[in-house]
Amino acid sequence: MRNAHLDAFLVPMADRFQNEYLPEDQRRIAWLTGFSGSAGYVIITVDQAVLFVDSRYTEQSHQQVDLKEIHINPLRSGAITSWLCSELDMNARIGFDPWLHSINEIKHLKKVGAKKNLNFMSLAQNPIDQMWIDQPKPNGKPAYMLDLSESGVPTFEKIGQLISVLIKRGVDCPALTCDVTASNWLLNMRGYDSPYTPVFFNYTLITETEAVEVFTNLEQVPERIRCTLKEKVIFCDWSEFEASLKKHKKLYLPSEHVPEAIREKCEKNDVFYTLGDDFYSARKAQKNKVEIERMRECHMIDGLAVTRFLYFLQTLTSFDDITELSAAKTLEDFRKKSRQYLSPSFSTISALGEHAALPHYMPSEKTNASLRKDIVYLFDSGGQYTKGTTDITRTIFLGDNPSPLLKKHYTLVLKGHIALARAHFPEGTSGVQLDVLARQFLWKEGLDYGHGTGHGVGYRLNVHEGPQSISPRAQNQPPLVEGVVLSNEPGYYQKGAYGIRLENLMVVEKSLVNQEFLCFDTLSLAPFDRILIDEAILTQDEKEWVNAYHQQVFKTHRDFLSGAEKGWLQHITAPIL
Amino acid sequence: MRNAHLDAFLVPMADRFQNEYLPEDQRRIAWLTGFSGSAGYVIITVDQAVLFVDSRYTEQSHQQVDLKEIHINPLRSGAITSWLCSELDMNARIGFDPWLHSINEIKHLKKVGAKKNLNFMSLAQNPIDQMWIDQPKPNGKPAYMLDLSESGVPTFEKIGQLISVLIKRGVDCPALTCDVTASNWLLNMRGYDSPYTPVFFNYTLITETEAVEVFTNLEQVPERIRCTLKEKVIFCDWSEFEASLKKHKKLYLPSEHVPEAIREKCEKNDVFYTLGDDFYSARKAQKNKVEIERMRECHMIDGLAVTRFLYFLQTLTSFDDITELSAAKTLEDFRKKSRQYLSPSFSTISALGEHAALPHYMPSEKTNASLRKDIVYLFDSGGQYTKGTTDITRTIFLGDNPSPLLKKHYTLVLKGHIALARAHFPEGTSGVQLDVLARQFLWKEGLDYGHGTGHGVGYRLNVHEGPQSISPRAQNQPPLVEGVVLSNEPGYYQKGAYGIRLENLMVVEKSLVNQEFLCFDTLSLAPFDRILIDEAILTQDEKEWVNAYHQQVFKTHRDFLSGAEKGWLQHITAPIL
Repeated sequence: MRNAHLDAFLVPMADRFQNEYLPEDQRRIAWLTGFSGSAGYVIITVDQAVLFVDSRYTEQSHQQVDLKEIHINPLRSGAITSWLCSELDMNARIGFDPWLHSINEIKHLKKVGAKKNLNFMSLAQNPIDQMWIDQPKPNGKPAYMLDLSESGVPTFEKIGQLISVLIKRGVDCPALTCDVTASNWLLNMRGYDSPYTPVFFNYTLITETEAVEVFTNLEQVPERIRCTLKEKVIFCDWSEFEASLKKHKKLYLPSEHVPEAIREKCEKNDVFYTLGDDFYSARKAQKNKVEIERMRECHMIDGLAVTRFLYFLQTLTSFDDITELSAAKTLEDFRKKSRQYLSPSFSTISALGEHAALPHYMPSEKTNASLRKDIVYLFDSGGQYTKGTTDITRTIFLGDNPSPLLKKHYTLVLKGHIALARAHFPEGTSGVQLDVLARQFLWKEGLDYGHGTGHGVGYRLNVHEGPQSISPRAQNQPPLVEGVVLSNEPGYYQKGAYGIRLENLMVVEKSLVNQEFLCFDTLSLAPFDRILIDEAILTQDEKEWVNAYHQQVFKTHRDFLSGAEKGWLQHITAPIL
Repeated sequence: MRNAHLDAFLVPMADRFQNEYLPEDQRRIAWLTGFSGSAGYVIITVDQAVLFVDSRYTEQSHQQVDLKEIHINPLRSGAITSWLCSELDMNARIGFDPWLHSINEIKHLKKVGAKKNLNFMSLAQNPIDQMWIDQPKPNGKPAYMLDLSESGVPTFEKIGQLISVLIKRGVDCPALTCDVTASNWLLNMRGYDSPYTPVFFNYTLITETEAVEVFTNLEQVPERIRCTLKEKVIFCDWSEFEASLKKHKKLYLPSEHVPEAIREKCEKNDVFYTLGDDFYSARKAQKNKVEIERMRECHMIDGLAVTRFLYFLQTLTSFDDITELSAAKTLEDFRKKSRQYLSPSFSTISALGEHAALPHYMPSEKTNASLRKDIVYLFDSGGQYTKGTTDITRTIFLGDNPSPLLKKHYTLVLKGHIALARAHFPEGTSGVQLDVLARQFLWKEGLDYGHGTGHGVGYRLNVHEGPQSISPRAQNQPPLVEGVVLSNEPGYYQKGAYGIRLENLMVVEKSLVNQEFLCFDTLSLAPFDRILIDEAILTQDEKEWVNAYHQQVFKTHRDFLSGAEKGWLQHITAPIL
């Protein structure tokens, strides 16, 4: 830093694709500080290092990092810019790796930093990579292709669709996507480059001539795939990327998801570029019939694993040696019984009692609690399957006598879950309008939860998918449309005591009540914990919803269960009167 | 137009203050075309005139204008600009009166017109005013001042509050408001210059030195008021306005509500100006304790008039000679019995049967229907009182045997009304989040209504007040805050048959369930039509709400009713079991 005359250097939790989950070789913050969480930011100055983490990682970060070397700050909206503006001198020089920041991010940093005349210096080499002697190598596993029975729409048709979107928006030049979930969706390809999300890494350029250029590690693309797609898709090596940019005189860059480094390369090579919104998310989020059908099927398989795990937990006679971590492993073992299972879709939340009050708690060796009787246990987990992606949360009571207050809280959350699941709404409605349905019963009691109610979910892709969501903060959200898959996950968190969250995935479909209306169909299939339901505060309609849902769970799984499991499931899914 | 080389001239339904309701001398469209509706737009070209009206005025406009001379077009969002772009030649010259268009409006016209190189020409004189020989004169009635027991906060304190708002926003120069509801609120003054809204007309300039300059017709400002406010408020004649602009080197102009003419004057006189958002609406909408207390009182008085009108309608033995227009007059006569009554707060909607299916229907001599048995009657009306402003809608059935479907629709609307009225919600919640509460029961049946659920209401001021509202289209809405008054008016409209709307005003107040939560308290006090309630689809909670509300109505009015009225009210407000 001294050689480069830098006053600070930025280390975001990011890779060149703005992936949510980073592969090992990109986990620079973990290597640098020892902090292994999934979100964070580091600023290094010549005399200190500051790690920014959000509230869920406060405890973990304090345990994992050397507090003599590293100062820990809360990661809130605007925390990085305000730290830079308040801690650095006027005219300070701040280095960054332009591959790890989006164009929008750097634009924002420069704008806010202008008042202190901060200079953001784009570095040709990431200094951490230069020091990181044993930086892991990417696994290099080959990508593979989904066949039509798996993707539903041929690659060439999707390319045509995206080109239509671009034309409609008045884009008259090649458009780049660095979002690998988008390119994997577009190409009907998947891979092993990222944890939790089955993608292969690439940058993809969509040109007006319907020729798509895919820049990637060529060794990972089997000859057969190149052949299949050769009419419209040209696979090129990473090394050809800059030369290709130069070849195009004009480019469209979705600035929220394209690295600053690419904008710089355009500047350097006199490539004219237009910055704009992303053009693929809305198209990708609207699943086709094959995708929806397969998502339904994988939810049957996933629901079976979750139901078996619930049976395992609810019928334990002793909790010896069962911990949050081991329970999470047991759950994955149930999922692994299916040959369609690929991996978790995110890191499992397995949380006992007061841990469950932290919505994003993830167990570690240091916090790992042992299960015991008469306590709440919450697990939030999902799987990647050959047929799709799942995400489900159940909250159970490990005992027979939950307190009336706990039952009330559980039932208020359940009532909200049901109200959203049963909603019908006109086309054009967006998630921000529906969010209150899940909160209204808690609100009546002065209670609430601090997270959104629902996020989009990809098909055999990212478990957190845009652009739709169900949230109070979803300003300028596009309307919900047929085929979008969303989670329905209201919760309630009693600090220091317990947490409740009930999550199913749902698909948006046409409503039968009015041809211009939409509604949700629930995909996830696992029972709620009957002992936590306070039947007295359910309406008849709500009871009917629970009963119908439980019947569907029972009918779906009964033929795949052991006799004991089946008897148990029949018992706990019997109608509430 | 030929002399001025104009290809078109714009006639908006507007005055210099962007008032919602125009005084007689500003009703240029009515003079020009004969169309007397409250919303419309005219474009005159050298060979045609086009009147744009929205759907509620389609029939009326066709009856009122000479269709040989005037072409009628639908007034939709973007209708004016697309007409100009499609009907006029490249480089066309379009005249406008810069006093009748806001800065934002002209900016938008110029932007959209740029693709056809349309030239918007600001005219020094409005050609209609030059031709309008018998243009009425303003009534010239003097303004008056509210005393502290009526306003709750002294003028000087309000001035200080607004200056703080401006400082917080970084505005370091005098700020102008041309919104007369804002200046009348600020000055604690009212007047008679506008129909329906008791305001006196002025432009008000708030300077950093806490001196406020008010430009108006000086003859309308009594000496006593000038004296009372002289420490901080200087009243100047309209003729001094331009000279004052010149004196200030820099101005802040809220561009949505300041005429383009003022921006032009700044340009001409080298006055530097910053365009920005309005800085007063949020402050004004948050009523103080005195305002809320008085709003409560005027709703008792107004509720009594509405209740008496309902008794009158419901106990008629013959409908001879009672029409939509005469019923509206009868309703106003009941209101006039109070010495506190000033005027209607908007033009009364009095609508029978299929007329009620048009949410904004207003009876005219030509459409005026006679009341009869076994039909729905809807009235939406309000009053300006010395204690505040009201707005209430009731829908009743003139007979004993409404159809089950009508009862179902009425009850679904009522359930939505109740759900919103009973809501509790955390601070920070905005109207777009709550809107669905009023729609959810209709949506379940595939039904909906095409208007917002609630609008803000001023205190002894404009019956439609920003910035808060409860609507699906309320993007970027500020959160609801304590003291805001909003309408709660879900509806259902069965085309060609009947319309239902149930409207009360509510004030936002602190919730008792959580100190960081808010809730609504209903202000309006008139019974719902019991015969239209399908009790079978009300929940116990909903019945309790209706019963408690009806008890409050009965207790409030009983001592002011005749024996017969009281007996009737007691009967129809008896608890639903």
